[in-house]
Amino acid sequence: MRTRFQQGLDDLRQKLLRMGGLAEQAVDRARQAYIDRDLNRCHLVLEGESLINQSEREIDEAAFDLLAMQQPMAVDLRFILAVTKINSDLERVGDQAVNIAERVMDMVELPAVDLPVDIARMGAAVSAMVRRSLEAFIEGKAELAQAVLEMDNVVDRMKDDAFIQLVKTMNERPEAVRQALDALLIARNLERVADHATNIAEDVIFWVQGADVRHNVPPEEQPESPAAHEGTQHVPGA
Amino acid sequence: MRTRFQQGLDDLRQKLLRMGGLAEQAVDRARQAYIDRDLNRCHLVLEGESLINQSEREIDEAAFDLLAMQQPMAVDLRFILAVTKINSDLERVGDQAVNIAERVMDMVELPAVDLPVDIARMGAAVSAMVRRSLEAFIEGKAELAQAVLEMDNVVDRMKDDAFIQLVKTMNERPEAVRQALDALLIARNLERVADHATNIAEDVIFWVQGADVRHNVPPEEQPESPAAHEGTQHVPGA
Repeated sequence: MRTRFQQGLDDLRQKLLRMGGLAEQAVDRARQAYIDRDLNRCHLVLEGESLINQSEREIDEAAFDLLAMQQPMAVDLRFILAVTKINSDLERVGDQAVNIAERVMDMVELPAVDLPVDIARMGAAVSAMVRRSLEAFIEGKAELAQAVLEMDNVVDRMKDDAFIQLVKTMNERPEAVRQALDALLIARNLERVADHATNIAEDVIFWVQGADVRHNVPPEEQPESPAAHEGTQHVPGA
Repeated sequence: MRTRFQQGLDDLRQKLLRMGGLAEQAVDRARQAYIDRDLNRCHLVLEGESLINQSEREIDEAAFDLLAMQQPMAVDLRFILAVTKINSDLERVGDQAVNIAERVMDMVELPAVDLPVDIARMGAAVSAMVRRSLEAFIEGKAELAQAVLEMDNVVDRMKDDAFIQLVKTMNERPEAVRQALDALLIARNLERVADHATNIAEDVIFWVQGADVRHNVPPEEQPESPAAHEGTQHVPGA
């Protein structure tokens, strides 16, 4: 028989997944708005922000209620704490999507110029990171989360390349300075989305393994990582 | 007689204050490094990052242990959750200081140019926000936290002005593009520090009032805010 507490945990997971869907959608829309110079999509991103903020509040309150309801076991406690952290990262992913949409709105007012940066590709990589970090959360799999951490290095390199090329553009083509700056800031926003996906992946690992992989704690200092199967019931306690 | 749990709460508060001191110091050093074009201070900021990261881990573990130790009362629960959120914001303040130090290191390699931006003043405003958000936390005073929220608008305007002026510089003075870009990114990093201070202030209010002021919930939707006196013992529960 399922307890009220267990039901609450399931609800919390569902709420966070919906929140994740909203954040992912915001990034995808902002990326597509850049590609198509599409003001409508920019407005959708801006309008979506309040829904994301509202979700964040609801999830925090639900987590609080669960913690207040009864003495959670260590594994459930880690799960709830991971949810509150992932929640906060997802809200910031939404903020980054808004920043990107605002930069796209600036670009649409300027003449279109060719820029030496593949925002579409970088955006796709970053969206994949968000999606996989959420999959890792759904399936409670540390391996999936680990893959996200590795993708972060790729995105960092993309951002560094974009930075170098776009500064060169600004130096050589004064007529394209503002567009290049917009693109550079978008690349930076995408890199930050990747950072949030990385934070989420680390929180999944914290929950699944009871280990803290943040800030590159060497593997030998981490507790042994037992194989995580599907669902939280297999997850070892702290 | 003080219980072990109460002692744990006090230790957690002390740990967070030390963490706050480190984050604040990092921002101050990065700001001073900009003013003096001082590579040594930049290196101090970079080296300080691991200490901040280590503090973040310790605080999270201490919060986890307290939650696992016994059924906390609602007010203590809110306090512990606020600590974990503030903790995460302080770590990101440290990250921003590192970003600033890296940009200063780039600038020091370039010829010094006059730029139409007062980074020193903006940095001072931002440091004051971090300091006051921590004071609001120490004293458990929602009014102090509220003042931080208001300062955020001022910093946002400073960043917008810097943005406009520096883009103009990039357009008109190709020889100063890279320095102007560095300064622009520093202004953006400072704005993000201000955002984290704002998050901290909101978390203090969440803890003190049991209300959620995030994302501009109108006052009429918030529970009544009883006057907070000094110390947590006066703080009403949720």
